[in-house]
Amino acid sequence: MVSCQAVANGTTQPRRADTDDKRKLIDSVDCFIFDCDGVIWRGDSVIDGVPETLDMLRAMGKRLVFVTNNSTKSRAGYLGKFTGLGLNVNAEEIYSSSYAAAAYLESIDFKKKVYVIGESGILEELDLKGIQHLGGPEDAEKVVALKKGEYMEHDEDVGAVVVGFDRHINYYKIQYATLCIRENPGCLFIATNMDAVTHLTDAQEWAGNGSMVGAIAGSTKREPITVGKPAEFMLDNIAKTFGLKRQQICMVGDRLDTDILFGKNGGLTTCLVLSGVTDEETLLSPENSVHPDYYMSQLSELLAVKEAAKVAA
Amino acid sequence: MVSCQAVANGTTQPRRADTDDKRKLIDSVDCFIFDCDGVIWRGDSVIDGVPETLDMLRAMGKRLVFVTNNSTKSRAGYLGKFTGLGLNVNAEEIYSSSYAAAAYLESIDFKKKVYVIGESGILEELDLKGIQHLGGPEDAEKVVALKKGEYMEHDEDVGAVVVGFDRHINYYKIQYATLCIRENPGCLFIATNMDAVTHLTDAQEWAGNGSMVGAIAGSTKREPITVGKPAEFMLDNIAKTFGLKRQQICMVGDRLDTDILFGKNGGLTTCLVLSGVTDEETLLSPENSVHPDYYMSQLSELLAVKEAAKVAA
Repeated sequence: MVSCQAVANGTTQPRRADTDDKRKLIDSVDCFIFDCDGVIWRGDSVIDGVPETLDMLRAMGKRLVFVTNNSTKSRAGYLGKFTGLGLNVNAEEIYSSSYAAAAYLESIDFKKKVYVIGESGILEELDLKGIQHLGGPEDAEKVVALKKGEYMEHDEDVGAVVVGFDRHINYYKIQYATLCIRENPGCLFIATNMDAVTHLTDAQEWAGNGSMVGAIAGSTKREPITVGKPAEFMLDNIAKTFGLKRQQICMVGDRLDTDILFGKNGGLTTCLVLSGVTDEETLLSPENSVHPDYYMSQLSELLAVKEAAKVAA
Repeated sequence: MVSCQAVANGTTQPRRADTDDKRKLIDSVDCFIFDCDGVIWRGDSVIDGVPETLDMLRAMGKRLVFVTNNSTKSRAGYLGKFTGLGLNVNAEEIYSSSYAAAAYLESIDFKKKVYVIGESGILEELDLKGIQHLGGPEDAEKVVALKKGEYMEHDEDVGAVVVGFDRHINYYKIQYATLCIRENPGCLFIATNMDAVTHLTDAQEWAGNGSMVGAIAGSTKREPITVGKPAEFMLDNIAKTFGLKRQQICMVGDRLDTDILFGKNGGLTTCLVLSGVTDEETLLSPENSVHPDYYMSQLSELLAVKEAAKVAA
C-alpha cells in the first residue's frame, strides 16, 4: 500500500525542475553532454535561448560535448552547422557517430581496410585516424546486372564493414558488405547507430540508419557492434578523451529510450528536455519506466539560475 | 544408456533411402512439393535426371507443385524458366512467393492499395487478383534530395506494404514504405520471404530478401507477416488450392532449416536431396536436429523404382 500511495502522491514520479533544482544540477556536474536534435536545434532551426544558455554554462567553467547519432558529417563538417546557427562551438566538442566509428577502430588497434556504407562523414573521420577505406559515396551509382554467371569480386583485406545512414543505399553496397562479412574471416560489422527514424528535415521523420543496418543484418544474420548512442563505447570514449569521471557528467536529451537510458545506464546524471520528441504526458505515464533525474521544457530554462543570481545581487 | 546406444547404433539417425524406401515414399503420398533451387536446378542449369523423374511421377498420377521463395517473377514468368530448361510444367503447378503475397491478400479480403518493394513478379500476381498497387520497378530511379524542408507525400489508402527481393532497392522506396507502415493505421507489413542469401547466379550467393525486409523492419520496428517458406500460409494455401490433406504431401528440398523444417512443422512427409546446400556430413552431425523422413543424393534417384519395376517385369 505504501508504495502504491507513493506513486499516487507522485513522489516516485519525475518532477519538473524548479530554480533550486537547476542550480543543484549545474553545481553537481562538470560536463554536459547534449543530444543535438530536439535539444540544441530542431531540423534546421536553433531552439530559442540555446546560444545564451551555452554561453552561461561555458562562463561557469563547464565542459560541453555535443553528441549526434547522425553519421553523414564528420566533426569538422558539423562545425559548419553549429556556426551557421550562431552557436559558438569547437570541432573537439562535437562527438558524431561517424567519429565514434573511427575512434572504436582506433581503440582496437585496427589495421585492415574498412568497407563503408554511409556518407562522407565516416570517410573523413577514418582518414583522420589513418584507416584505409573503400565504398561510401563512390559506390553510389554502381549497379549489379545479375546477368548469367555474374560474380562480384570483393577485397579480402576488408576487416570491418561500417554502416551509417546512406541516402544512396543500393544493392551493390548491400552485396559488397554482405560478401565481406560472410566471407572474410573475423570481419567486424559496425553500426554507427540503430535509429529507426531521424529528423533529416524539419518537415517529417525519415527512415534512419536502422534501415541500412537492418539490410546488412538481414543478409548476414549477424548483429552489429553499435558505437553511437545508446552504446557504452561512446560514453567510455568521451569520459576518457576529456578525463572525466561518470558522476561528473550530465546527459541532456529529448528521447527517453535513447538519451536518458544511455545516461542512466552509464551512471550519469540525466536531464530530459521537452523541446523534442517526448511530451510531459509520455514522461509521466505509468507505461514509462525511464525517469530522468531532472526535466524541463527546454534547455534555456537553465538561464533561470542566472536571473535568480541577478535578483539576489 | 539405451537412448545413447540407439544414437551410437545410428537407429535414430536419418538413413539414406534404398529402393524399398523410395517405393514406400512414392506409394504413401499423392503430391510432391519441390523446392526448385538445389532440387530441380542449380542457378541456371537443370540437375541431371530431373526431367525424367518428373515425367515418371506424373505418369504415376502424382500431383507436382514447384515452390520458390524467389519473388522476382510471377508464376507465368517462372514458366519460361521451366520450359527453357526442358521441364514440362504448367503455370498452375508453380507456387512462387510473389503469388503467395497476392494469395494472402486475397485470403483476408484485402480491398486497399499495396505499396510494393520488389520486382515485376509481385505486380503481375497482384494484377491477376485485381489488387491495386503502386511502387515496384517504377520507383527504381527515384531519388530523395533531402533538401531543407523536404517532405515526402504518401498515399493514405495504402493498407499493405509487400516486400520482396529488389535489386533496385533505394532510399525513396525505403522511406515510402516506412511512411505507409508508420503512418497509415492498420497498414500491414508483408514479406514474401526472409532468405538471407539466394542463388541469383551460379557463381556465388547474393544478399537475399532478408536485406530488403531488414531495411523496413529497421525503420518501422515492426516484424513482417511472412508468406513464403517456411511460413504456414503457403502450405495451407497449397493444400486448399489442390484439395489435399497434409499427410498426402511430401516436401522435397535441399535446406534443413527451411524446406525440411517447413515440411515437418506442417505435418508433411519430408525428403532431403543432397544436390543443393546441405551435405551428408551436416545432415548426420550431432548438431543437426532436423531429420527428414528420407534422404538421397538427388531427385533422379527415385528413378530406381522404375528400373526395379522393369527388372521385376
